[in-house]
Amino acid sequence: MPELYELTACETVRRVADGDLTVEALTRAYLERIADVDPAIEAWQHLDPEQAIASAQALDRAGGGPLKGMLVGVKDVIDTVDMPTTYGSKAYLGHRPPYDAVVVAQFRHAGGLLLGKTVSTEFAAAAPGKTKNPFNAAHTPGGSSSGSAAAVGASMVQVALGTQTAGSTIRPAAFCGAVAYKPTYDLIERTGTKTLAGSFDTIGVMAKDVRDVAFFTSVVGGRPNLAVTDEPAAPRISLYRSEAWPLAQPEAETALQRAIAALGKKGVDVPEIPLMDGFDTMLETHTMMMDWEVLRALFYEHRYLPEAIHPRSLEMFEGRVPVATPERYDEGVRRAALARANVDKLFGDADVLLTPPSPGEAPPGLEKTGDASFNRMWTMLRAPCVTVPAGVGPTGLPIGVQIVGRPGDDARTLAAAAFVEAALKAA
Amino acid sequence: MPELYELTACETVRRVADGDLTVEALTRAYLERIADVDPAIEAWQHLDPEQAIASAQALDRAGGGPLKGMLVGVKDVIDTVDMPTTYGSKAYLGHRPPYDAVVVAQFRHAGGLLLGKTVSTEFAAAAPGKTKNPFNAAHTPGGSSSGSAAAVGASMVQVALGTQTAGSTIRPAAFCGAVAYKPTYDLIERTGTKTLAGSFDTIGVMAKDVRDVAFFTSVVGGRPNLAVTDEPAAPRISLYRSEAWPLAQPEAETALQRAIAALGKKGVDVPEIPLMDGFDTMLETHTMMMDWEVLRALFYEHRYLPEAIHPRSLEMFEGRVPVATPERYDEGVRRAALARANVDKLFGDADVLLTPPSPGEAPPGLEKTGDASFNRMWTMLRAPCVTVPAGVGPTGLPIGVQIVGRPGDDARTLAAAAFVEAALKAA
Repeated sequence: MPELYELTACETVRRVADGDLTVEALTRAYLERIADVDPAIEAWQHLDPEQAIASAQALDRAGGGPLKGMLVGVKDVIDTVDMPTTYGSKAYLGHRPPYDAVVVAQFRHAGGLLLGKTVSTEFAAAAPGKTKNPFNAAHTPGGSSSGSAAAVGASMVQVALGTQTAGSTIRPAAFCGAVAYKPTYDLIERTGTKTLAGSFDTIGVMAKDVRDVAFFTSVVGGRPNLAVTDEPAAPRISLYRSEAWPLAQPEAETALQRAIAALGKKGVDVPEIPLMDGFDTMLETHTMMMDWEVLRALFYEHRYLPEAIHPRSLEMFEGRVPVATPERYDEGVRRAALARANVDKLFGDADVLLTPPSPGEAPPGLEKTGDASFNRMWTMLRAPCVTVPAGVGPTGLPIGVQIVGRPGDDARTLAAAAFVEAALKAA
Repeated sequence: MPELYELTACETVRRVADGDLTVEALTRAYLERIADVDPAIEAWQHLDPEQAIASAQALDRAGGGPLKGMLVGVKDVIDTVDMPTTYGSKAYLGHRPPYDAVVVAQFRHAGGLLLGKTVSTEFAAAAPGKTKNPFNAAHTPGGSSSGSAAAVGASMVQVALGTQTAGSTIRPAAFCGAVAYKPTYDLIERTGTKTLAGSFDTIGVMAKDVRDVAFFTSVVGGRPNLAVTDEPAAPRISLYRSEAWPLAQPEAETALQRAIAALGKKGVDVPEIPLMDGFDTMLETHTMMMDWEVLRALFYEHRYLPEAIHPRSLEMFEGRVPVATPERYDEGVRRAALARANVDKLFGDADVLLTPPSPGEAPPGLEKTGDASFNRMWTMLRAPCVTVPAGVGPTGLPIGVQIVGRPGDDARTLAAAAFVEAALKAA
């Protein structure tokens, strides 16, 4: 019989609804798990076991709610009314917002339990936090949603929230063996989340499997059609390596071939789309926009808190000052609009694309959180992305494959990802 | 010789730079003006004269900065680190954010002085604040940027910031005899501003004339080309009454005809564009999106603070619950995207459109802030809008005309508005 912390959120929600499990028992099981494994990982920015148990007891006394029986970790760039919110920065140590971010209020109102705050890089940007990869503490967990990915990867929480502006949800989840879903831009309300680059910032969801991320999002997004309830139909899926392919490590190819073989066993062919004209400068386009927007969104911290923030953040700001011109930004916006208008041409007959979520395994060292080149194009296009685990690489660290859909086509994308996930598990 | 509070910000900035005026003397002049006229108007949510004078003295001791010599009032939905920020709500009385909103940090960094916080309706939505129209205290100043419009209209501050989600900057400014500029969506960074509907929320700028709003925005937006420095060339300008026209009062037509006659004297013809297919359901489209986004952005206040917020806000939330479905929202998004893609068809040969900023004069009573039907289409299209005063209506209250440009074409729109303003002043 599996431990409680091995169950998916869909399973524990059902058990709680059936009266077979209390939220308190579930919470205690997770707190024990955290006490066992977190000292070597340090995924949590704020975790108060007594507060968590009190919240669980209150939920057990209260009525139902579709997410009752789900524990959630929240990246510390997302405001919480009863826990400190530091935005990953010493400059905001001890800050207590007067409200919950909308996404937090939404999952709490639906019966979900906020277990604690997870470690973020500073302002979800470059300067890393304390978290280590749960599979090898000498490797990065990825970032910027470092704590959320490590917490889910090490079964310290069922669901965790991240944010993605370049690759900050999909990449760390792939590095830590978690499933992650970055919805279409703006599908989950981001009010109450620290802005990094407003045109891209998207709240993402990590969990043990695709059904859990889909279930969570169907409830907080107010979109019941996102839930993956039936057996998903076989998707039309094409391989697209993208302009980032020269950065791929051999294990990225291994993972793709594993997925293609697994899909083949289910009778699904995966044709390849060659690098497409009009989509071959997407990384530059993303950078042209992000440079300008980051400088703008973090103007206060850059100009008024230069000594309180991490030197890496200050360096990042200063490096962007000379290149972030309105002309370059407007050219990025123009290119992005053109690419977004042509997405159908890229996808062709495919429902979804298969592509790597990262260049390969989590790289060694904790000073850098890895390369987002396999994410930035999709974030810029505002497309829904899901990463699912696809075995391990040469160092024994997790690797994943990414499923990408058309912007707004989240239900189909999640169903396709659940199909790929099942195929990989069956293979 | 004019009083100091009658000068434009461009003038006082020049005088301060030339050493002919101190920021302290300017601030004291405005504080006296406020002491004289504000008791009947109540435009300010927070104003601490000692704090203002201390800030002015610090600026006089400091170096320069392009906005040194400009005093700014800030709508109380915008975060300030050293003044309370209530979002217009009793639920947040005394809240002190740990940072300045970006726009505030930007104008302060450039030498501008934050004079105080101005009254907002609750959450920039329906429940009005205490402010009265400076031209007749029995009439609304408009909303939601009530205090900013009244403060500028009564010469209590040089520049004031508002926000616009439907018509909350342009309409109150027109009601209070001020110039206002709602830039293209996202031109001014809104990080640190309470979200009402993220797809529409835009920070707007009010002042005595078009050059002041253009100058302010050129600096904080990092876009020098927005400044109106030379004599602007004659624009190609067409009249567009829009689907809201049946709501227009006779004085709206009077104001348009005044502007058309004034332009005629300058040799500019104003042809009329009839109501255009594809742009005749813009009000409904805006509503379909806003209903969903408002409920989402204010989820925390709706669900967790129902007894602390104004009954009018709660009523607004509850009224939207049954109609705000994802299907209706997605249909609104689809229609909005189509209309935005067809803007060139609407404008035709025109650089800008001439249209009313409001149905007419500020209506009597303080319980409602007036109708936004002449604003919602342009906010939804993300177009730059400027209102300039065009005399008074039958009750002796100000009326304006609105100049609207293509999204992203802000420099041309501001120049055209300055031309219309000059023509009206000369007429």
